[in-house]
Amino acid sequence: MTDRLQNPSSEDSLIARYFKPLATDPGAFDLVDDAAILKAAGEDVVVTTDVVVTTDAIVEGVHFLKDDPPDTIARKALRVNLSDLAAKGAVPAGFVLTLALRSKEDAWLRPFADALGEDAKTFACPLLGGDTVSTPGPQMISITAFGRVPQGRMVGRTGAKPGDRILVTGTIGDAALGLDVLTGGAVAAALASDPAAKDALVSRYRVPQPRNVLAQAVRDHATAAMDVSDGLAGDLTKLCAASGVSATVDVESVPLSAAAASLIACNAVCVETLLAGGDDYEVLCTVPAAQSDVLIAAGWAAGLAVTAIGTIVEGNERPRFLDGRGQELALKRLSYSHF
Amino acid sequence: MTDRLQNPSSEDSLIARYFKPLATDPGAFDLVDDAAILKAAGEDVVVTTDVVVTTDAIVEGVHFLKDDPPDTIARKALRVNLSDLAAKGAVPAGFVLTLALRSKEDAWLRPFADALGEDAKTFACPLLGGDTVSTPGPQMISITAFGRVPQGRMVGRTGAKPGDRILVTGTIGDAALGLDVLTGGAVAAALASDPAAKDALVSRYRVPQPRNVLAQAVRDHATAAMDVSDGLAGDLTKLCAASGVSATVDVESVPLSAAAASLIACNAVCVETLLAGGDDYEVLCTVPAAQSDVLIAAGWAAGLAVTAIGTIVEGNERPRFLDGRGQELALKRLSYSHF
Repeated sequence: MTDRLQNPSSEDSLIARYFKPLATDPGAFDLVDDAAILKAAGEDVVVTTDVVVTTDAIVEGVHFLKDDPPDTIARKALRVNLSDLAAKGAVPAGFVLTLALRSKEDAWLRPFADALGEDAKTFACPLLGGDTVSTPGPQMISITAFGRVPQGRMVGRTGAKPGDRILVTGTIGDAALGLDVLTGGAVAAALASDPAAKDALVSRYRVPQPRNVLAQAVRDHATAAMDVSDGLAGDLTKLCAASGVSATVDVESVPLSAAAASLIACNAVCVETLLAGGDDYEVLCTVPAAQSDVLIAAGWAAGLAVTAIGTIVEGNERPRFLDGRGQELALKRLSYSHF
Repeated sequence: MTDRLQNPSSEDSLIARYFKPLATDPGAFDLVDDAAILKAAGEDVVVTTDVVVTTDAIVEGVHFLKDDPPDTIARKALRVNLSDLAAKGAVPAGFVLTLALRSKEDAWLRPFADALGEDAKTFACPLLGGDTVSTPGPQMISITAFGRVPQGRMVGRTGAKPGDRILVTGTIGDAALGLDVLTGGAVAAALASDPAAKDALVSRYRVPQPRNVLAQAVRDHATAAMDVSDGLAGDLTKLCAASGVSATVDVESVPLSAAAASLIACNAVCVETLLAGGDDYEVLCTVPAAQSDVLIAAGWAAGLAVTAIGTIVEGNERPRFLDGRGQELALKRLSYSHF
């Protein structure tokens, strides 16, 4: 559209250049309109569908670092939202993007848009629209993503019941360690001779791996679910509070990567760093005990580790994190907070 | 939920304190969840409905000024999105909010949240969810809003046909003049003795008046529509390009406020400032000639001026803006650009 204008606004040409190729859904109208249609259901779906909406923003200097590669920033911006959809049991349907930029350098925008388009394709979550604004401050990417679930089937936070098993996907704490590597902390020093381990942890910080392959199993079996974004301890605390229950967690069961386990073993970090670190983007869910093996098997079938780490119990107390001797850990902090 | 946590994250308590009261739709789950359900249709609606999604962000120093009152910032953030829904012929259904804040001072957040809640109620557009992040830079509010239209009935930009009349609501250019007042420009000087006029123009910049009362009439009669946000001249150019048509506009027909007309009369500003100024948030639409009176009457019935300013013609040329003698104005710029 903008090519034939004699005086196109730069924002329009930026959108046409970088983001129109990502707008593959017919409801996006090639981004020439102000709004997008989100069909309530796919053309061939006869059951009634709910549209799940989630929104998460990432800010330079807070959720990503100034020197992070633009492709990883793009992937993180979308994936933190895909992670929410996975935990809600929803199938991704599309997203809208607000991009607050300092400049429109191609060297930054091209890899950003390309990576965003790749992820949109990989996760079948097309761009539906957006807004691009300039800011003299830190860059920020805000995404609102949409998913679909059969009517009434979104997995909330409020359904956890005493006796439910607490399951978590993947491994916990790697992203917090990766951030420590990037900021030259104790982890960077401890892994000075192991660049591969450092790279793996950094990658976990920069590029979350949303667990959308597990969404249907979560929807079929979980009583409550959320993604772990602000630290396992704090997020489980929120889930329990929303459900009106408490929990006990066997800390030795919490799944750790080899790098994280070795850092714990040599006392380079303490377990609290892992339990309260942010940016995991794993699925945390509660499942009736009789169904936990089914969910774990669904993970296996998808190549994804799903691990039981504890049990929901009655009560209003904060979840208890027990060490190998059954002693409660006194966590000084539960989660990452932006303020 | 956060009250009973021993160690609530500050972000959660901020959300509970300021924004939970705005989350009046059951699909928002009182903001204790990561995601919101947007029902594809109201409970009592039997026709199939499309969900219209729109997103617009406003940034301190770009779309609002640092010293603007927080209540007007909140209203502007929501209303620029409501304006999009109005122009699409959609009925507001709800919105999600991303708030990038430097601080969480109550003196700023309280009036912000209160005004946002008032507007959400006034326009029947409840908060569905959101994300709050910290930023060391300028504050930014990004909103994604949802509306509903009967299936396939969203009014796009591509349907304008030669012979259609071009209609615009309200008055054009006042917000650009209001920004000039706030930044101490020529308008401020010209209106030094007329504080009421200055206040009126400033109000038009700070608090847009979205034309949602006209949404159904736009849906029933317009062949194409958009809201005027970046300047009438540029926005009409975009609409024509999307529709593959051109246009002629009678500049003397463009509706002006008394203040704008007097500033033109005394040569304090030129008409280009009004035609290319941003932030109008009026509806621009094209209507078959036989139906233009019906749309104008619908505006009257709602207490809203709707004015015919020109005609769609065949061609690919940029729209022509003709003065009272039929001479084409040579506009040096068409719109406001953020870059």
